[in-house]
Amino acid sequence: MSPAELAAREEIRDLAARYNALGDTGRLEALCELFAEDGALELDGRACEGRREIRALFESAAEEARGGSGIRLLRHFTATHVIDLVEEGRARGRLYYQVLTERGLDHWGRYFDEYRVEAGRWRFGRRRVTVDGLVAGGWAERTQRRVGSAA
Amino acid sequence: MSPAELAAREEIRDLAARYNALGDTGRLEALCELFAEDGALELDGRACEGRREIRALFESAAEEARGGSGIRLLRHFTATHVIDLVEEGRARGRLYYQVLTERGLDHWGRYFDEYRVEAGRWRFGRRRVTVDGLVAGGWAERTQRRVGSAA
Amino acid sequence: MSPAELAAREEIRDLAARYNALGDTGRLEALCELFAEDGALELDGRACEGRREIRALFESAAEEARGGSGIRLLRHFTATHVIDLVEEGRARGRLYYQVLTERGLDHWGRYFDEYRVEAGRWRFGRRRVTVDGLVAGGWAERTQRRVGSAA
Repeated sequence: MSPAELAAREEIRDLAARYNALGDTGRLEALCELFAEDGALELDGRACEGRREIRALFESAAEEARGGSGIRLLRHFTATHVIDLVEEGRARGRLYYQVLTERGLDHWGRYFDEYRVEAGRWRFGRRRVTVDGLVAGGWAERTQRRVGSAA
Repeated sequence: MSPAELAAREEIRDLAARYNALGDTGRLEALCELFAEDGALELDGRACEGRREIRALFESAAEEARGGSGIRLLRHFTATHVIDLVEEGRARGRLYYQVLTERGLDHWGRYFDEYRVEAGRWRFGRRRVTVDGLVAGGWAERTQRRVGSAA
Repeated sequence: MSPAELAAREEIRDLAARYNALGDTGRLEALCELFAEDGALELDGRACEGRREIRALFESAAEEARGGSGIRLLRHFTATHVIDLVEEGRARGRLYYQVLTERGLDHWGRYFDEYRVEAGRWRFGRRRVTVDGLVAGGWAERTQRRVGSAA
């Protein structure tokens, strides 16, 4: 593995960690900058393109979380990250996530990612989020029931 | 840490991630190629040597999973991976895993690994899987009761 | 990302993995050497400075774990590790942990770290441990009730 590949993989791993660290602490501005300008995010039913739409989606999710959801915190644990470099400045990845609130495990699933270098750093070209399971009566389940989405 | 060590560690981390990603999606051919030709796999009571035996073990496990196990998916989350380079082309590692199905946490334990370079890439020379706990009534527990193994 | 940065990040990731691998298996001598000579550790209420105090804290925690705690094993799973290099030989990090015993999830929270190079390797200059949640009736909850600390 070349130094360039090593660097690409480390930067992509860092990108994935920052996504959840920023999201879990509500730093939405910095979170959106992890996406390419025309990047895409798919959460269950909803798909959005470009940072403006992504921002709106995150804001609506944050509002749901505040609005009577009854939880104080979200922690996204990720694991089993497989990264494939496709060509210079482009890569794909898959990884698992599980979300704990202060009550314990809430929901879990997978990320399917496309990464690319834009403006000097690796960013999400596309992230698709799927849900594999959720705890009955938990936050994701209640949110899903209310608005038709879970991740 | 030298560039060669960095590369070895990154390739070993990649190997560990692919093992679970391939296993969880049933891609057994590619999964077996992660082992050295004469690699070994130990799951609880059962030990097998060589890709042919390993393949047979994975196939029997996949069949158990399909045959009335009542679960749709397995996701192996790994963490806390300690890697020790022993000499050029040989290393050891230990890490934790936890398995979620669509119902939640199912079972968890540890991997004890020996890695070596063969045919140009890092592979498992030996992987020993132990189980630290399992959820009552879960998949691993039911499978164990039926066939005398859990991982 | 330069080779020096890659090496620093890999060594810090290794440091974080060894902390939990050593702690979970009770190798307290090696665990304490992961801290700088005057390193600090904060667990909930308790703060200690220097390896001697850290050692005493770990020993008292190990004793609590043995003394009628009723659990056989601890496994700390970490994830979502964000590392920021501050300057040559100094860095900061944040990551999540969740602890499983043989009974399942027990408690979970975050590490807030300062790392620095001392005597030729990266060590903890400071680690602060917070608890985000714990399972009712679990080990951390019972220990907390007894001695006023949980991590």
